[in-house]
Amino acid sequence: MKVGIIGLGLMGGSFALDLKTPFPKWIIYGCDQSKENEKKAFELGIIDHVISLDDLNKMDIVLVSVPVDNSLKVLKKVLDIVNTKTLVFDVGSTKEIICEFLKGHKKRSNYLATHPMAGTEHSGPESAQKGLYVGKTNIICEFEKTEKDLQILALKIFDSLKMKTIYMDPKSHDIHVAYVSHLSHISSFMLGKTVIEKEKNENNIFDLAGSGFESTVRLAKSNPITWSSIFLQNKTNLAAAIDQYVKNLNIIKDLIIENDNAKLKKVLENTNRIKNILNKKQ
Amino acid sequence: MKVGIIGLGLMGGSFALDLKTPFPKWIIYGCDQSKENEKKAFELGIIDHVISLDDLNKMDIVLVSVPVDNSLKVLKKVLDIVNTKTLVFDVGSTKEIICEFLKGHKKRSNYLATHPMAGTEHSGPESAQKGLYVGKTNIICEFEKTEKDLQILALKIFDSLKMKTIYMDPKSHDIHVAYVSHLSHISSFMLGKTVIEKEKNENNIFDLAGSGFESTVRLAKSNPITWSSIFLQNKTNLAAAIDQYVKNLNIIKDLIIENDNAKLKKVLENTNRIKNILNKKQ
Repeated sequence: MKVGIIGLGLMGGSFALDLKTPFPKWIIYGCDQSKENEKKAFELGIIDHVISLDDLNKMDIVLVSVPVDNSLKVLKKVLDIVNTKTLVFDVGSTKEIICEFLKGHKKRSNYLATHPMAGTEHSGPESAQKGLYVGKTNIICEFEKTEKDLQILALKIFDSLKMKTIYMDPKSHDIHVAYVSHLSHISSFMLGKTVIEKEKNENNIFDLAGSGFESTVRLAKSNPITWSSIFLQNKTNLAAAIDQYVKNLNIIKDLIIENDNAKLKKVLENTNRIKNILNKKQ
Repeated sequence: MKVGIIGLGLMGGSFALDLKTPFPKWIIYGCDQSKENEKKAFELGIIDHVISLDDLNKMDIVLVSVPVDNSLKVLKKVLDIVNTKTLVFDVGSTKEIICEFLKGHKKRSNYLATHPMAGTEHSGPESAQKGLYVGKTNIICEFEKTEKDLQILALKIFDSLKMKTIYMDPKSHDIHVAYVSHLSHISSFMLGKTVIEKEKNENNIFDLAGSGFESTVRLAKSNPITWSSIFLQNKTNLAAAIDQYVKNLNIIKDLIIENDNAKLKKVLENTNRIKNILNKKQ
């Protein structure tokens, strides 16, 4: 199989590396807006060859892993170019706008809308890591709109990476990830912003940061281009999630100001449930 | 040396374990409100003997590691009991109220106000871990109010654990930690609360939680008794920090709603600075 990967950053680069274990004979082609990234990805052994968009008709599988605002036009162009037997999928963190945008495309059935719940706060080809996708949850939207043989090929890939595939409509997907993923990034970025603004002397942050602050603020290191485009494509759901979050922040602030220890403890105890929910994962 | 540890949870238990490496001959005594915790701490080898509060006059060093609301009366009682050569210190996350409360005590010079920037989201004797304090920042307040020989003894302990000691007045301490530590806990707890409220079906959280959500919500697993008392003792500073945080959340929400990609990216880029600030630590 020939696999073309468009966008050789964390997501695309790691996918290339992960494919090599179950499918050592597959040949990985790649391209990126940045020639520098193409060179790095080749030198790091992430891709076997650089390819131009116009040659994508020779690929059996094409993965689009570019920021979600850009992926609209890239996915359209890729579907225009590929042949009728090629599987095209993306790994973007939003699905409603992309599915809506592609719904009338004559090669819609070549496309599979995919969102693997995988990532780190790093970016660029040098951040690609083997095993990023292994064992992770993978959300597929509008599965029925993808051609049967390509559904089978896609599941073969995801199963080989031991991913847990779940199915959702794009609207539900975007609501769920607004809370479970995108709001985490907002809360982390704004924690970083608030602390940087208060602590004019950065040495204080350096000195005082314990492991608690470090893990809570980790996502504030994430790529601004990737995340601004995700936030904008999930605007309505994310704004509602932020409102809910702010409402809860004001609730706890009031309990603190009113010295209501009993209710405050109750809120924290109820939230401790997250421990049992997440522990199931281990 | 005989060391008495009052409160055998994460902080006290880990301190006991950490002391054993540089000072293998020191004997560790411990007590806890819970007989069960005393038993566990003894069985786990955290303490050598259980001790009652009334026998603290036989100790050379006493560490008070109980929730900060409780530590006011415990520290007073300990200072009443210990002999005039005993070093007494605490590891609480707030310092202003405690220093104010003890300022008139006739054995004030036996006390050292200490806050090591160390911890995990776990609690109880079984969460105690060797190495928790090693290499961490340690904040000391009102150093000059502690008797000279006891200053020297305390620094000997902290240096032996390779801690980086910094000095602050209690008021500044409480302001700094409101932002760099306590706000992280608030943001994490409220993220957990918001997601639990939205996702009535907990399996959705379990399925969708990526490593990003997991690290941002980690502190929401923390002990409610410990943290409600910290929040209440740092009420004014923390309320101001929450206000600032909410202000920033509303700023980013407005940029998202207004589709202002340029400004949104700028905010995220500026916050990315946290990467360089924290990287210095590694």
